Amino acid sequence: MLAAARTAFAERGYDGASIRAIAGAAGVDPALVHHYFGTKDALFLAAVEAPADPDDFLPEVLAAPPDRRGAAVVGVVLRVWDGPTRPAALALVRSAVNHEWSATLLREFVLAKVIRRVVGTMDVPVEEREARGALVASQVVGLVMTRYVLRLEPLASASPASVVAAIGPTVQRYLTGEVVLPGSDRP
Amino acid sequence: MLAAARTAFAERGYDGASIRAIAGAAGVDPALVHHYFGTKDALFLAAVEAPADPDDFLPEVLAAPPDRRGAAVVGVVLRVWDGPTRPAALALVRSAVNHEWSATLLREFVLAKVIRRVVGTMDVPVEEREARGALVASQVVGLVMTRYVLRLEPLASASPASVVAAIGPTVQRYLTGEVVLPGSDRP
Repeated sequence: MLAAARTAFAERGYDGASIRAIAGAAGVDPALVHHYFGTKDALFLAAVEAPADPDDFLPEVLAAPPDRRGAAVVGVVLRVWDGPTRPAALALVRSAVNHEWSATLLREFVLAKVIRRVVGTMDVPVEEREARGALVASQVVGLVMTRYVLRLEPLASASPASVVAAIGPTVQRYLTGEVVLPGSDRP
Repeated sequence: MLAAARTAFAERGYDGASIRAIAGAAGVDPALVHHYFGTKDALFLAAVEAPADPDDFLPEVLAAPPDRRGAAVVGVVLRVWDGPTRPAALALVRSAVNHEWSATLLREFVLAKVIRRVVGTMDVPVEEREARGALVASQVVGLVMTRYVLRLEPLASASPASVVAAIGPTVQRYLTGEVVLPGSDRP
């Protein structure tokens, strides 16, 4: 079932993949999938081997005032990565860097479960949301890579508060500030 | 010789490792190391398996006016990664994510051969340089990860010019702008 779910989510995305289709591909009854995993959401988290459930920390981000949302994003990322979930999160990053299908799943996970939900609550035009979300991801993923994977100093041992103060404004600008949006205008 | 060089550069850094010590660890004459690799610089590039020689593109960055240095950094990163060196660069990133020693080498390479040389030419206090360099790395590494590894749209297929316009200002702020520097104040 998990293998069928990974294929479906990677090929059709979170919204496009249905429990019915996943059950069909796995040759089981949809009721069995529901029995084992409950919701499509839980099946997705299991398929991705997500180290943390975004529902546990997203409410805190979304509760922050719109002009503090950037700092809240950085703060939550640091809390997840500075906590006991770091080994599982690191394993997910390693897998995504090593395997195309895993990169596709991680991208879909970050997009559907984190980025779209954060950017979707901001007061920006709908057509800007994906671009702003990708810019936010570029800074957050880079922070994770330099602080936790490459362990570049002084970022690696800096206090969470100072990292939020340094990088929060960048995420805030990408979310709501003036920014030239990266366009798909390459031939 | 390469194995001894990797160990030496990873343990002592680029400046701390000497050709004499590397030759000693490898059980060969220093003249032989010089014969095979020429300079310590060339030996370092070979040890890291660097996909490109920073000397080929750094002059362009350093020639940009100080207030355009951020855009120049992003432009050069995109040119290296959009060109034929991408597979080798990707292999280096994969190795760094998978192996601690490789992460140490890549960090030392990026620090000694790229970041310090860019930040070293900026008009900022010496004690701010490492912190600003780490912040620049956090954005540049994240751009590489999202555009080339995770292939997050619209960043993955955006024109280089639009990516430079979106992300250049962030790098510029980290290089010379007002920023709270991440401090090593964690207990």
